[in-house]
Amino acid sequence: MDTPDYRRVPDHITVAVVGAGPAGLGVARVLRDLAIPDVWVLERGQVGESFRKWPSSTRLLTPSFPGNVFGMTDLNAISFDSSPGWSLKREHPDGPDYAKYLNMAADAFRLNVQCGLQVKSLETEADYMLLHTNHGEVRADFVIWACGQFAAPSDGGLIGGEHGMHYASVRRWEDLPGEDFCIIGGYESGIDAAIGLSNAGKRATVLDAGMPWKDNNKDPSRALSPFTHQRLSAALPRGNITLEDDADIVAISRDGEGFNVLACDGRSWRTPNAPILATGFGSGTAPVSEWFDYDEAGLPRLTTQDESTELPGLFLVGPEVSHNGYLFCFIYKFRQRFAVVARAIAGRLGADTSVLELYRNNNMYLDNLSCCEDDKCLC
Amino acid sequence: MDTPDYRRVPDHITVAVVGAGPAGLGVARVLRDLAIPDVWVLERGQVGESFRKWPSSTRLLTPSFPGNVFGMTDLNAISFDSSPGWSLKREHPDGPDYAKYLNMAADAFRLNVQCGLQVKSLETEADYMLLHTNHGEVRADFVIWACGQFAAPSDGGLIGGEHGMHYASVRRWEDLPGEDFCIIGGYESGIDAAIGLSNAGKRATVLDAGMPWKDNNKDPSRALSPFTHQRLSAALPRGNITLEDDADIVAISRDGEGFNVLACDGRSWRTPNAPILATGFGSGTAPVSEWFDYDEAGLPRLTTQDESTELPGLFLVGPEVSHNGYLFCFIYKFRQRFAVVARAIAGRLGADTSVLELYRNNNMYLDNLSCCEDDKCLC
Repeated sequence: MDTPDYRRVPDHITVAVVGAGPAGLGVARVLRDLAIPDVWVLERGQVGESFRKWPSSTRLLTPSFPGNVFGMTDLNAISFDSSPGWSLKREHPDGPDYAKYLNMAADAFRLNVQCGLQVKSLETEADYMLLHTNHGEVRADFVIWACGQFAAPSDGGLIGGEHGMHYASVRRWEDLPGEDFCIIGGYESGIDAAIGLSNAGKRATVLDAGMPWKDNNKDPSRALSPFTHQRLSAALPRGNITLEDDADIVAISRDGEGFNVLACDGRSWRTPNAPILATGFGSGTAPVSEWFDYDEAGLPRLTTQDESTELPGLFLVGPEVSHNGYLFCFIYKFRQRFAVVARAIAGRLGADTSVLELYRNNNMYLDNLSCCEDDKCLC
Repeated sequence: MDTPDYRRVPDHITVAVVGAGPAGLGVARVLRDLAIPDVWVLERGQVGESFRKWPSSTRLLTPSFPGNVFGMTDLNAISFDSSPGWSLKREHPDGPDYAKYLNMAADAFRLNVQCGLQVKSLETEADYMLLHTNHGEVRADFVIWACGQFAAPSDGGLIGGEHGMHYASVRRWEDLPGEDFCIIGGYESGIDAAIGLSNAGKRATVLDAGMPWKDNNKDPSRALSPFTHQRLSAALPRGNITLEDDADIVAISRDGEGFNVLACDGRSWRTPNAPILATGFGSGTAPVSEWFDYDEAGLPRLTTQDESTELPGLFLVGPEVSHNGYLFCFIYKFRQRFAVVARAIAGRLGADTSVLELYRNNNMYLDNLSCCEDDKCLC
């Protein structure tokens, strides 16, 4: 990869893909297979930037296995011809390992990636979109927004949220000063934090309005993953994790001796250390939010081609894609929409799209969204 | 499930599926979806019999994840509408847990399973096949052989193989008397044995003619799984596992003080305890071997419909299915052939097979074997 301070991207390109994570690299690969010229991936940091910043003990939740040859593409692969399970020899890569795979993929797919270029805003002109960056302007006929949410931590609207420490800001649980922590939120991040703290010999109390650790939902986007269930089962007997359900936290306050975490029913928890906020993430679309409409859940409204309903030519790929209430928030889900976006762009450019049949045959082209409605777990 | 000593299966049935493991239950489910009448699964022990006998620390090698709804069916599921990852909340179930899932599946699919009925041999009559069992005879128009290989341990033709102890005969590594073990064979079973012994605080020396632990083959049927790589990496720093490549073992001898393990180049290893044989498994087809032809690798020769080349009406499902050198030895592979066998039988009975499109759409119907020829791991 090039050094961040050297700009190679031309002034006017066909497609600007913003973000060199799994979504951006994955969709750029499809565009390359379609022989779309002048496609550039613009990345504020390095390839896989957010993954490089994950807490050291955090792992991908979906297990990698190189089942590609029999149509069971590695769940963490961004293409049907690559497998982090095979190249990294790990089922659950950590963030930096996964960034390595993304780097290998960018090379293997021969993608144009411009690192160190941060897109700050988007303006429309008559015939193109104008991206303002930290290294001048880029004109693009199409823009595919592919920024993840890790860089947009949210405190979930808590009163006094500024007293908390967001999950995404922690690099190593063992380095946190203090022995006793409250964690607000009991989904994947909250349980990961609890396990990380427990493994470091610290005590963790997880507070959640519901009981995600008991949720039997069949959609992995709504319930804990088997990996997390398994890790939690292994950690619980140690006795330093407490799971508190029915704790709908609304506020954090601070006094001379520590922090007070308040639930809506009046109960409260004292903790000497800043509460960990496992309260989720905002949208990765913030720099271009004026060009998207958002639904009640804060998700960008999209056409059936994953194009902004507000600005033709601006597409979205990645974990914020949703349709009919179905979240595409895992790699194995959102990668199935890369080909949909690529076909839309290729169609407008008059390019041949026959190669996309290969994507369909490899379970990498999901355009019939009714499939998601079946109950697929009898047992 | 019924008790083993009570026979419910009628004298004459349409399809006898022999073996209530993942292969037998999986193919029986497809036949039920096709509304084929009088299908019975005949099982010598209980549902999932072999899995119940696995060493206690052994886990399924392929990771379970309930990705079914997005077309990424749990790798260990026997149908596209079930997921052991979801029902067991484990990525790598142990044998008894997986047997639980199989039991749930047999119930959920409302299959006819006759436990405690062991098929000992097969004879042909003019219009049907006659199965001799421990509870009388069963006449069947079609027979689907679905016995796994775990019950057929092989010493790989070692001289003095009777001095060894086969991997499949061990229930708990920590219960083995002795502190120091030679393991003959370094593929999945051998490495699993080494890790099991190491975890129990014992020393293990793995002897293999090649170097499977370094093999970078892209086919998981030929190289160690990511799960095993990961477990081995975690165990090696403990220092009690030795991996010896280029050790082509040909003989075991025994004297008053222990055992001698001899390689073809004249080197030998002394060990006080019976060497562990991780030398693989024979064929699960032994009781009907006269009705199959076998290739040089000892695999049954099959038609493109997975029918015996020697006896029309006798089909094979499970890990011994192979075509063009491709092994279907994982659940996620061999399950893709259930529908092929079911279609062949349904076709001869004149049954409607349109429901099988659902199987094709769910990556559970692999009839184009050329798919396996692609290189699907660029990185």
